[in-house]
Amino acid sequence: MQSVLDIPQELASLQGLLTESLSRVETVFAGQLVSDLPPVDEMCQHIERYRGKMLRPTLALLCGIAADPESDSLLASQEHAKLITHSHIISGAVCEMVHMATLVHDDVLDEAEIRRRGQTINMLKGNEVSVILGDFLIASSYELCSSLNSPIPSQIVGNASAVMCTGELLQLHNRENLSMDESTYIEILERKTAALIGAACELGALATLGYDQSINPTTLALKSFGQKLGIAFQIQDDVLDLLGKEEEVGKSVGKDLEKGKLTFPVIHHLENSGVMDGTRSLMMLQQAAAGDRSVFPEITKAIESTGSVEATQKLAESYVQQAKDALTKLPESAGRSMLELIADAVINRSF
Amino acid sequence: MQSVLDIPQELASLQGLLTESLSRVETVFAGQLVSDLPPVDEMCQHIERYRGKMLRPTLALLCGIAADPESDSLLASQEHAKLITHSHIISGAVCEMVHMATLVHDDVLDEAEIRRRGQTINMLKGNEVSVILGDFLIASSYELCSSLNSPIPSQIVGNASAVMCTGELLQLHNRENLSMDESTYIEILERKTAALIGAACELGALATLGYDQSINPTTLALKSFGQKLGIAFQIQDDVLDLLGKEEEVGKSVGKDLEKGKLTFPVIHHLENSGVMDGTRSLMMLQQAAAGDRSVFPEITKAIESTGSVEATQKLAESYVQQAKDALTKLPESAGRSMLELIADAVINRSF
Repeated sequence: MQSVLDIPQELASLQGLLTESLSRVETVFAGQLVSDLPPVDEMCQHIERYRGKMLRPTLALLCGIAADPESDSLLASQEHAKLITHSHIISGAVCEMVHMATLVHDDVLDEAEIRRRGQTINMLKGNEVSVILGDFLIASSYELCSSLNSPIPSQIVGNASAVMCTGELLQLHNRENLSMDESTYIEILERKTAALIGAACELGALATLGYDQSINPTTLALKSFGQKLGIAFQIQDDVLDLLGKEEEVGKSVGKDLEKGKLTFPVIHHLENSGVMDGTRSLMMLQQAAAGDRSVFPEITKAIESTGSVEATQKLAESYVQQAKDALTKLPESAGRSMLELIADAVINRSF
Repeated sequence: MQSVLDIPQELASLQGLLTESLSRVETVFAGQLVSDLPPVDEMCQHIERYRGKMLRPTLALLCGIAADPESDSLLASQEHAKLITHSHIISGAVCEMVHMATLVHDDVLDEAEIRRRGQTINMLKGNEVSVILGDFLIASSYELCSSLNSPIPSQIVGNASAVMCTGELLQLHNRENLSMDESTYIEILERKTAALIGAACELGALATLGYDQSINPTTLALKSFGQKLGIAFQIQDDVLDLLGKEEEVGKSVGKDLEKGKLTFPVIHHLENSGVMDGTRSLMMLQQAAAGDRSVFPEITKAIESTGSVEATQKLAESYVQQAKDALTKLPESAGRSMLELIADAVINRSF
């Protein structure tokens, strides 16, 4: 995540600590997945290709720092390393592992997709390996989380994971529901994306404040920051899937249209089209969901014609603002400033 | 599991407690999966069809009882209900949930299977629902487990789940490896089946003795009992898949041959065939793995000709004996007797 930020000079010390800590997160992450069985190790290497932006560990670490009232003076001292404990590192690794499990499981193809896309798309040994590798990541994340010596982090991660699944189920249920409304869309985002990002921020704060501080105003503020940021993040992800360029986004785009998943730009467009144009758009959306990518440019044009891209941008900005508002409960600090920078970056990214 | 047992009169009181407790397990199980979202609830009802024999909760409860030195006198008193606490119930529900998640994920089909079996086999909305419902079960099991107020049960369940996945990966790695040996087969069973059954027994014992009693000899004995029993159980499962009748087993048989999974009867057969017969069997196994079910009867006949069914039965019996031997570390009690009965039943079942 840091790579997208333009870090001001006064945050250089914090940035150094963050970079160093993220590399510790990666070490813990990799260590947890080591197996005594060589073939298992070999299959685990496939997980590597799902490596992401490390947004969740970054937030867990920064929330841990921002939750410490002494953080700025520690950062200025020789003792800045004290800000990040083993619990912060583990919290970051756990959240990244849960997130990566969902990416691996997203790659499990259903029958229709396999027929449509041909078998080359699934580069591993097939669906079964994807399912089990994802399960292995989930199980490993829980095992790692339970090493934290309190059942509270396990409760937070277990709950966030279960809520994520209900979000995915709600999204599946609404697949090809062309009359899905904005509030259902936001509910899906709250569940499938915001819950885990909120949990990452909460775990970071608790690692600093203690696991009995779940209702401490600082914990609640950082958790809320994460949840609002998570919604903004997912809105931007959905925009990139619709309008992004494959080579910039770094993954195939147009998947939502192809899967019949309505995202905000489309919902806004349908709600703001006249009968004629709306009907035409519905037909094109059905064609797209049936696998016809040739209608994509026309759908994009239609969405732009109703100002739906700007409206989506505004919606994402409003969640970024809510996230930043939550931070005002905390004293100003380098940690808080960096969180604010990340909040802005989440919707200004093109990947 | 009780239904397969011929329960002697002196265990009637224990049996009553068990039946009552298993119904509490079911209530907790169902309660954990309730969602505030009606479509999610509706999809969760699909999970019902994976309902099993409740072996893991039965063992967790019985191990909890057998671990209590006062169990027999409590059973004889009006206070027998004290033997089963909320922690026992939760432990049982957690293990059943993890187990059921693996059953749901087993139903995710890979490309070859979908082509071979046709789309009717996947009765739900497709692979994606199966993947997410399984994930929801896993997450819910962890959330439930973390309510136990100690991180130890989460550690045990997280570890057992991760080990299960390595067993599945090892099995996948050895698919269509026709020279797989007995020790690899046993290693797969130890991981994919015995780890969780051992964990169920361990959790039951710890719920009685306290979560700091992981190396108490009683805990270790019951955990070992579960692990050995788990191996015997899976050997029998593999025999039923090979030789059982679909209407008795209650699920489709011959799946291992079709998936190119070598199980003990086949391994023993190949190791004990002459060059001519062995080569013929290898060819038939390859045909079976390519989807040709017409060779099944001939494979079965070949396996019987080398005495491999009896050898498998003997192997299973030896693990049942090891399981019972582990129990001798405990004083005699009704709980221990019931565990012994279950150990015998595991390999005498035809379903």
